[in-house]
Amino acid sequence: MNKIIEQTFSVPFRYQVCFTESVFGEGNPFLAQLLKAEKKPKAFFVIDSGVADAHPALVNAIKAYAKTYEDSFILCAEPLILPGGEISKNDETSFKKVVDATHIHGIDRHSYIIAIGGGAVLDMVGFAAAISHRGVRHIRIPTTVLSQNDSGMGVKNGINAYGKKNYLGTFAPPFAVINDSEFLKTLEDRDWRSGMSEAIKVALIKDEDFFCWMEKHVEQLSAREMEPMKTLIIRCAQMHLDHIAGKDPFESGSSRPLDFGHWAAHKMEHLSGYRIRHGEAVAIGIGLDTTYSYLKGMITHKELIRVVTLIKSLGFALYVPELNGEALLKGLGEFREHLGGELTITLLEKIGRGVEVHEMDNNLILKAIDQLKAFHQETLVEN
Amino acid sequence: MNKIIEQTFSVPFRYQVCFTESVFGEGNPFLAQLLKAEKKPKAFFVIDSGVADAHPALVNAIKAYAKTYEDSFILCAEPLILPGGEISKNDETSFKKVVDATHIHGIDRHSYIIAIGGGAVLDMVGFAAAISHRGVRHIRIPTTVLSQNDSGMGVKNGINAYGKKNYLGTFAPPFAVINDSEFLKTLEDRDWRSGMSEAIKVALIKDEDFFCWMEKHVEQLSAREMEPMKTLIIRCAQMHLDHIAGKDPFESGSSRPLDFGHWAAHKMEHLSGYRIRHGEAVAIGIGLDTTYSYLKGMITHKELIRVVTLIKSLGFALYVPELNGEALLKGLGEFREHLGGELTITLLEKIGRGVEVHEMDNNLILKAIDQLKAFHQETLVEN
Repeated sequence: MNKIIEQTFSVPFRYQVCFTESVFGEGNPFLAQLLKAEKKPKAFFVIDSGVADAHPALVNAIKAYAKTYEDSFILCAEPLILPGGEISKNDETSFKKVVDATHIHGIDRHSYIIAIGGGAVLDMVGFAAAISHRGVRHIRIPTTVLSQNDSGMGVKNGINAYGKKNYLGTFAPPFAVINDSEFLKTLEDRDWRSGMSEAIKVALIKDEDFFCWMEKHVEQLSAREMEPMKTLIIRCAQMHLDHIAGKDPFESGSSRPLDFGHWAAHKMEHLSGYRIRHGEAVAIGIGLDTTYSYLKGMITHKELIRVVTLIKSLGFALYVPELNGEALLKGLGEFREHLGGELTITLLEKIGRGVEVHEMDNNLILKAIDQLKAFHQETLVEN
Repeated sequence: MNKIIEQTFSVPFRYQVCFTESVFGEGNPFLAQLLKAEKKPKAFFVIDSGVADAHPALVNAIKAYAKTYEDSFILCAEPLILPGGEISKNDETSFKKVVDATHIHGIDRHSYIIAIGGGAVLDMVGFAAAISHRGVRHIRIPTTVLSQNDSGMGVKNGINAYGKKNYLGTFAPPFAVINDSEFLKTLEDRDWRSGMSEAIKVALIKDEDFFCWMEKHVEQLSAREMEPMKTLIIRCAQMHLDHIAGKDPFESGSSRPLDFGHWAAHKMEHLSGYRIRHGEAVAIGIGLDTTYSYLKGMITHKELIRVVTLIKSLGFALYVPELNGEALLKGLGEFREHLGGELTITLLEKIGRGVEVHEMDNNLILKAIDQLKAFHQETLVEN
């Protein structure tokens, strides 16, 4: 009696991720070549205030670059500088400014919004670009370790709402991502460090060799040597990209292996009013889920000590007051809702291999918190 | 010197479009079967006030249906009734109510937002669903001819902003579409009629046989006979779905053949403060672009008369004061911007075959307007 039409199709996506130096250097044509088209497109820049402050010459460099490559694109307005950090996602103020700008400057579906900044600003601008004209082309220039090796690579964007991280957002691949190592030089030590937690994460769940490589290079990485950092970023970014392309880019299922260590991290960040950086919270979250994996009998004590030692050696804290049992158990419930009712948490079955579980033992979580607090205070020794 | 990673992947989409009768009838398990899952999902209904008014028993029917099929889903809240028509898209009030509801009722990515209404309400609810949790499952139950044969089938959603139609929105396929012919019985004559303009459109650009079929059934269609209307809807919906699946579902290019007659329609709707229905404006827009095609020497006078005769015979106006030359030329510029700078307009090279052009002659547009005004007033005779 019912007539049913089955509608099926696939949508192909493609974007370049470029690792370069001095993207706005006169002799670096990459961006200009990327933009060049038969009909010269408009480009509109949004800059994270933290980046603008650390690079006072940046706006003029962009203008000079636009002048040099005026055959390739039109700088259609003065770059818009917006507050950096999680504050840019916490209410709609910055988001609305970017959407308004698309209207004011006539940014259309063949124009470009180019965001320069940390992950939070990229997420916010990406969301504004994704919903204006149902998707304006969007180029990301991530400026932090974290955004260059992880968040900036991906297909997600968003802002926070109702006190929940990324409550509003879409899946929308960028037009391109450009990682410029110049921006890393001016990072605060905190930000240089905190991005490495995503590398620890991806190594722990997917790549034991990479974990060993990090153990070996822990001193150079801590001493801010650029070459090992570039290696770390490219390797981590590549794994992140492979994961996205691999199976479920828009996350229609519940499987979220890259969220290893993140359920607790999200809650801690929120509790701290975003005083704790995402990467710092993730390092603690990794410590927590690794300790939980040990307490659950899934990994050895030796493995546990290797993980917490690496985290500590890179300069991360393993405990903050926001690692509060009651609040975290509440956060676990919220994460379950965000995933759609069924909980999926990645734990470790060895260094280099994650495994998904669908329930967590509340008492073990509390025990893991105590253990982590102890690790934070003591010198670590393998059993 | 630069290292470049090429990221490519495809995202598959799949949804069912069902044509049924009495979707909330006790003996109609389609919706319940669609929702049923291992973990019983939440369902949240949003209803167009026009539909709620015309079907006073609807809310209770939904509640009774939820009771009958309580093993399949949870009716998680009282249905939300929101103003119908373009007003629901013109500011963020209704949109925000739906987004708020996802937070208040804990609607997650495995829950369902089910919208019942005309195309405007479906567009608005679809957008709210698409950005909450980066995409809550969304089922559309279109209640008008227009939304059942056209807008409700597609992958686009949105609301208006800055006085521009669909300025904010996304491409996000629904989880399913359910067309219930019961809802058509209570439509005002205006709405019964106005949806048929999209069928005229698709016939003109793609299917001469369908055009001839409409010419043959013009009296029954005007007399509100249900069987030919069902045939019209299924045939038009199928063509719309085929088009989406065919080439560029998320419209990354500029080709927009289904926008035949729409550039002028959008402007007229806006100028009238949405007093003119979308379908009514599209009928005039089709008349305009068909007349333009004739003036441009692309179709014969006989073909032109067949088209405007069908439009008039179905009861459409061919002229309204909003068909104003100056305003339309401005609208053409706005459409060019919306498309990304290069204009692409579909015209006719014969009945049943559209052809894309990239420029329009302003004087011929003005002449076509005059001609259409004359058609509106006079009895039509083939040369």
